Amino acid sequence: MIPNFADRFNGITGSAIREIFKLIAKPGVISFAGGNPAPEALPDDLAGNIAAKVIKDDGKRILQYGATEGYPPFVESLTSYLENKFGFDFSQNKVLPTTGSTQGMDLLCKAFINPGDVIITENPTFLGNMQAMRLYQAKLVGVDCDNEGIIIEDLETAVKKYKPKMLYIIPTFQNPGGTTLSLERRKKIVALAKEYGFIVAEDDPYGDLRFTGESLPTIKSFDTTGNVVYLGSFSKIISPGIRVGYMVGEETIIRKCTICKQSSDVHTANLTQAIVDKFLRENMLESLISKIKEDYSVKMETMLEALADFPEGTEYTKPEGGMFIFVKLPEGINAIELLNVAVANNVAYVPGTHFYTDGGRENTLRLNFTNSSLDSIKTGMSALAKIFKDNKGAN
Amino acid sequence: MIPNFADRFNGITGSAIREIFKLIAKPGVISFAGGNPAPEALPDDLAGNIAAKVIKDDGKRILQYGATEGYPPFVESLTSYLENKFGFDFSQNKVLPTTGSTQGMDLLCKAFINPGDVIITENPTFLGNMQAMRLYQAKLVGVDCDNEGIIIEDLETAVKKYKPKMLYIIPTFQNPGGTTLSLERRKKIVALAKEYGFIVAEDDPYGDLRFTGESLPTIKSFDTTGNVVYLGSFSKIISPGIRVGYMVGEETIIRKCTICKQSSDVHTANLTQAIVDKFLRENMLESLISKIKEDYSVKMETMLEALADFPEGTEYTKPEGGMFIFVKLPEGINAIELLNVAVANNVAYVPGTHFYTDGGRENTLRLNFTNSSLDSIKTGMSALAKIFKDNKGAN
Repeated sequence: MIPNFADRFNGITGSAIREIFKLIAKPGVISFAGGNPAPEALPDDLAGNIAAKVIKDDGKRILQYGATEGYPPFVESLTSYLENKFGFDFSQNKVLPTTGSTQGMDLLCKAFINPGDVIITENPTFLGNMQAMRLYQAKLVGVDCDNEGIIIEDLETAVKKYKPKMLYIIPTFQNPGGTTLSLERRKKIVALAKEYGFIVAEDDPYGDLRFTGESLPTIKSFDTTGNVVYLGSFSKIISPGIRVGYMVGEETIIRKCTICKQSSDVHTANLTQAIVDKFLRENMLESLISKIKEDYSVKMETMLEALADFPEGTEYTKPEGGMFIFVKLPEGINAIELLNVAVANNVAYVPGTHFYTDGGRENTLRLNFTNSSLDSIKTGMSALAKIFKDNKGAN
Repeated sequence: MIPNFADRFNGITGSAIREIFKLIAKPGVISFAGGNPAPEALPDDLAGNIAAKVIKDDGKRILQYGATEGYPPFVESLTSYLENKFGFDFSQNKVLPTTGSTQGMDLLCKAFINPGDVIITENPTFLGNMQAMRLYQAKLVGVDCDNEGIIIEDLETAVKKYKPKMLYIIPTFQNPGGTTLSLERRKKIVALAKEYGFIVAEDDPYGDLRFTGESLPTIKSFDTTGNVVYLGSFSKIISPGIRVGYMVGEETIIRKCTICKQSSDVHTANLTQAIVDKFLRENMLESLISKIKEDYSVKMETMLEALADFPEGTEYTKPEGGMFIFVKLPEGINAIELLNVAVANNVAYVPGTHFYTDGGRENTLRLNFTNSSLDSIKTGMSALAKIFKDNKGAN
């Protein structure tokens, strides 16, 4: 007899999403469901040459056990990259390379969360990290968002009521919302975190993918008290498959996360850290990013145009970058039930309900525009428009 | 103000070991302290070529997000490798690639352990995983070992008394003990696990490094009830720096571990999985392993010979393989205090006390023989012999 699994699985409902991804694995389905980069965005030729080169140059160190704190050349190049890019203050903060930024969130939960602790999130929010937080038995409290991101008055009310240990937030090109938190609100969040003593987990995987408008400073850049931890990633600009992200935080926090990482995976693979190191040292990111943005912005525009054919009364975000558009169909159109019809018509999305801490919102859905060709976007969106129009008020 | 860290850090004492590794980072120190493969054992030329080749052949898939369940070609080659090597029954079991076998233990704890649950371990045991288990707030109960591994009568008594959720065991070339669990005891452990319903975490990173004697079947190979989970690694035979391990277990257990892994790091880097896949598919392991064993066995013999010069009454294990020799000095010689003297004389080890769930045993130490040259082993061991003799009974 196998003993009982741990209590942390109580309330874990990964199955719906899993079923969706099984459903859409059907060959020939145009998928707006995932969050994958375009195949063309993945620099495979470069990466192959770089992998061979870094092993040739430093193979004995790369193949040997490394420090949990990271592959030293990468820690160096990453620190200087982040100083230049965001103005982070590395006299107060440290960087820790992680096995994707997902691991950063896991470590942060491991470092801070006791069962029952409250984490406030945007509502809707990234469902992968909802599961991460729930596996630490956090109580999630979602706060509504508008076009400028999380609504600050509601956040303050929730902070006073729930005394959270953490706020989890994706301020730029939010997943699934596509919205970007305003400058004003970024500053206010830092002030709230300082006043009420909670951690802000600032998750920023999409920040580099800005097609229009001006970049905003990170929340972390306003942080003087160590309450903000920045989670970064190279998944959307180099490769998600090599699993290299990082976290930047106040020294004692990074120390605790490092202890947690020691027994999570000892260290992130030296090889993949060395590959990203080379991209940074040889200044290859800028041209990669500009190529990706050129491709993605056309795809987003194409999808936005196609949304005009959705049923009258459909609302949707008009992002300035990122990978997602969030759609609110007129009440009565059930995006959860219609997913089956969509897949039967060879097109897929994720129903918005899964991104809400409290479910509901059956008329919402998330669309990814980065991993389909322009033709597929046109074909798929046209099929969706027809399905939603045909089933308007059917439920 | 930063909020309090989680309760899981209560009782975490990583600092002693950390201090040791800082101490021995002094240039010129001959270190018998780590558990690193010899630099010569790391196939850097091969790995560089393979890395370039796998990206050339399958770069778009390798750089893209992968499945938590593993890079498909690797899952295939690994399954067939393990069927042939151990006779595992994959109609009842599944394999899950992990980011080093350390992650396997972490996931297993995440899947099963509630705060206060008892895990029985060998006493002494691997301190990295002691920390992993303690971070899940498990209560560790150590059971003494003799030259045939964990003492079964004591284990059964402990099982009855503590009703453990798990037994963590390194049956072959134990760390730090160097001993190997007898066939009889392997079978008995499976029977106990079945009778009392606990999980056996069989950690086997050193099994391939057998210099003499006959290989024994894994504990897992006797398991018919799904109570045994096998944790494997390529760290000691290909490279620890690429972080590729795996776990084999009953399907529902692997499913829960997969859910945990989803939010731990999404998946192990496809690139490093693809590299190991190539080593398996092209049958390169056998010649690598035989070269490594040739080197390590001479080093172990050299270290064993040198132990004859340790103070009279010194006892030590005589392993048939692996990476470590465990030494028990005569009572009164304090290996904790003398580490400072040793480092001042440019030689280092890990005091045995850190491997015991309940500390003490100040007269014990662990010696690694794989990561030093023959000359260094001679020089270092001779220095240690002198230090221990000079300080016999000094404490």
